[in-house]
Amino acid sequence: MTVARIAVVAGDGIGTEVTAQARKVIDAVLPGVEATEYDLGATLYNRTGEVLPDSVRDELAGHDAILLGAIGDPSVPPGVLERGLLLKLRFDFDQYVNLRPSKLWPGTTSPLAGVKPGEIDMVVVREGTEGLYVGAGGVLHRDTPAEIATEESLNTRHGVERVVRDAFARAQRRDRQHLTLVHKTNVLTHAGGLWARTFAAVAAEFPDVTTEYQHIDAAAMFMVSNPQRYDVVVTDNLFGDILTDIAAAVTGGIGMAASGSVNPERAYPSTFEPVHGSAPDIAGKGIADPAAAILSGALLLEHLGHLDEARRVSEAVAAEVASRTPGAPLRTAEVGDRVAAAAAA
Amino acid sequence: MTVARIAVVAGDGIGTEVTAQARKVIDAVLPGVEATEYDLGATLYNRTGEVLPDSVRDELAGHDAILLGAIGDPSVPPGVLERGLLLKLRFDFDQYVNLRPSKLWPGTTSPLAGVKPGEIDMVVVREGTEGLYVGAGGVLHRDTPAEIATEESLNTRHGVERVVRDAFARAQRRDRQHLTLVHKTNVLTHAGGLWARTFAAVAAEFPDVTTEYQHIDAAAMFMVSNPQRYDVVVTDNLFGDILTDIAAAVTGGIGMAASGSVNPERAYPSTFEPVHGSAPDIAGKGIADPAAAILSGALLLEHLGHLDEARRVSEAVAAEVASRTPGAPLRTAEVGDRVAAAAAA
Ligand SMILES: CC(C)[C@H](C(=O)O)[C@@H](O)C(=O)O
Ligand SMILES: CC(C)[C@H](C(=O)O)[C@@H](O)C(=O)O
Repeated sequence: MTVARIAVVAGDGIGTEVTAQARKVIDAVLPGVEATEYDLGATLYNRTGEVLPDSVRDELAGHDAILLGAIGDPSVPPGVLERGLLLKLRFDFDQYVNLRPSKLWPGTTSPLAGVKPGEIDMVVVREGTEGLYVGAGGVLHRDTPAEIATEESLNTRHGVERVVRDAFARAQRRDRQHLTLVHKTNVLTHAGGLWARTFAAVAAEFPDVTTEYQHIDAAAMFMVSNPQRYDVVVTDNLFGDILTDIAAAVTGGIGMAASGSVNPERAYPSTFEPVHGSAPDIAGKGIADPAAAILSGALLLEHLGHLDEARRVSEAVAAEVASRTPGAPLRTAEVGDRVAAAAAA
Repeated sequence: MTVARIAVVAGDGIGTEVTAQARKVIDAVLPGVEATEYDLGATLYNRTGEVLPDSVRDELAGHDAILLGAIGDPSVPPGVLERGLLLKLRFDFDQYVNLRPSKLWPGTTSPLAGVKPGEIDMVVVREGTEGLYVGAGGVLHRDTPAEIATEESLNTRHGVERVVRDAFARAQRRDRQHLTLVHKTNVLTHAGGLWARTFAAVAAEFPDVTTEYQHIDAAAMFMVSNPQRYDVVVTDNLFGDILTDIAAAVTGGIGMAASGSVNPERAYPSTFEPVHGSAPDIAGKGIADPAAAILSGALLLEHLGHLDEARRVSEAVAAEVASRTPGAPLRTAEVGDRVAAAAAA
């Protein structure tokens, strides 16, 4: 019996290696998932010049979710795969909730002195379909002294309200029930005003959730000086991109950073992928850590309603990481085997 | 004999207290500075509704430099003083080099485990007159479901080239001669392209300087995982705002963070101010640390060509901070007295 139809875009570099482990673990906890592989990314682009053919996009649309590894290679000009593939999926599939949990797991070490496992546990809800990511803008008089280049941030009440409401709902389901809005209302007064007013309006629906506002520069600083203070954070597309990388850094790097680009209504497939890149330098050696990819698989399971399976996978990853000897080498496939066995049990 | 004419905008909260110390130190090392005080900020705005009258702006323009304390108070709506005063000075006085040195000084502690004083020493050169800070954008259908808000980032070859050239020149004068460009060329392809192409063109004039490019999200992460790697960083207005606060955080907070909004040609006065705010919670108690304000005074002296005096002030602040007992309370005026005495000697 097919319990879910998943499109697998393993991608480039270590993407294929870590995605194989995520699939192994998903299969172990949820037999009957039907997975179809799609060959997309730098390798395909360099061979054929194709990024995301319409026909492939339409096939992807027919799946319940997309499991993505890593896309990109230094040989491809900046923007080609980002705009043409990664962001195109987020926009075409209306993946407006870009979900990025950050936790300092037992067995991992924060670069911050005195911060102990368990103390950092936050989710950043990043808007995924608006802001500066829309690609609006242009260049005039290129390569002359008169050249100008513009980028436009587009923000709608519709787009802001739905992601803010999602963040409030998530905050309400968590222990601390705290939500921080991050923007730059003192400089970006137009968009900042829309975000702040929408946030205040939606807050009225969630009386249990305590709220706070921070400018992005202050938030970037607090992410370092006191990351323990955050529970759920909601912010725009670009600020979320930056903040989540700081959050990953203070929780020990992107080794454990999973993400989901989610369409909560499931009108389109959501994409789940590790935050790390294709790491060409260690690709093909079987030494990449698949933890973030497997945790992305757990987010996928959760999104599809398999909450118990998702929890077992997260716990198995946590146990695996806690049992590691710091600095000891790891084998990608062996980690996948151990997590799969533990999660299935 | 008047050696320089300085406008003093002490501002709000602790601004007046710390600025008094910066003046004390400047007077001690450079007798003959003529200082004129201007009453601007939240207090003035709340009393009169005025932010920066044109007549005051024109008077400020007649000075060699502006020493600023801190502007702002929660009682003023976001954007009023930022757009009307702080940013207006940067734009009207063409202060296109926003200079932010970050150093881990002896006697200060980084929140990063194992990072020792002396190991972090960077200058972020942030563009100050373009980008998303120009205020272009608007709101339509406010407070309706159809509301949209836009913000536009405007970037010119002229504006990018001059700040990039300034950053290269600074990198060339430093020991490590390394310059990192930070942008988001893979998503903001229009503006990112202009920055990257301009950077490459100017690099040809500075063969001694080694260069590197990082996306803002990666840079935000490296600022935490390996801030030692940075020497000079050049970036746009908004990315610079965020990065410099992370840089301040990893060097122990904004207690030592000085800044200059500089017009290198001296066609207009440049502004020098601590990065910290008006801190209403500790204002009036005489316990604010004036180190960042005094170091901003050193940047002012350096900008006006008084290099020896600037060096003596920096060294006196460094000695003062190194001699502190961690956690011991300090008196704002006593710190000013000690630094003034040491710098004058
Ligand atoms: C690769 C890039 C387009 C992407 C982004 O900027 O969103 C990445 O940094 C991320 O955070 O998923
Ligand atoms: C107060 C604000 C306008 C300002 C900025 O965003 O530039 C501040 O954060 C700074 O860094 O000087």
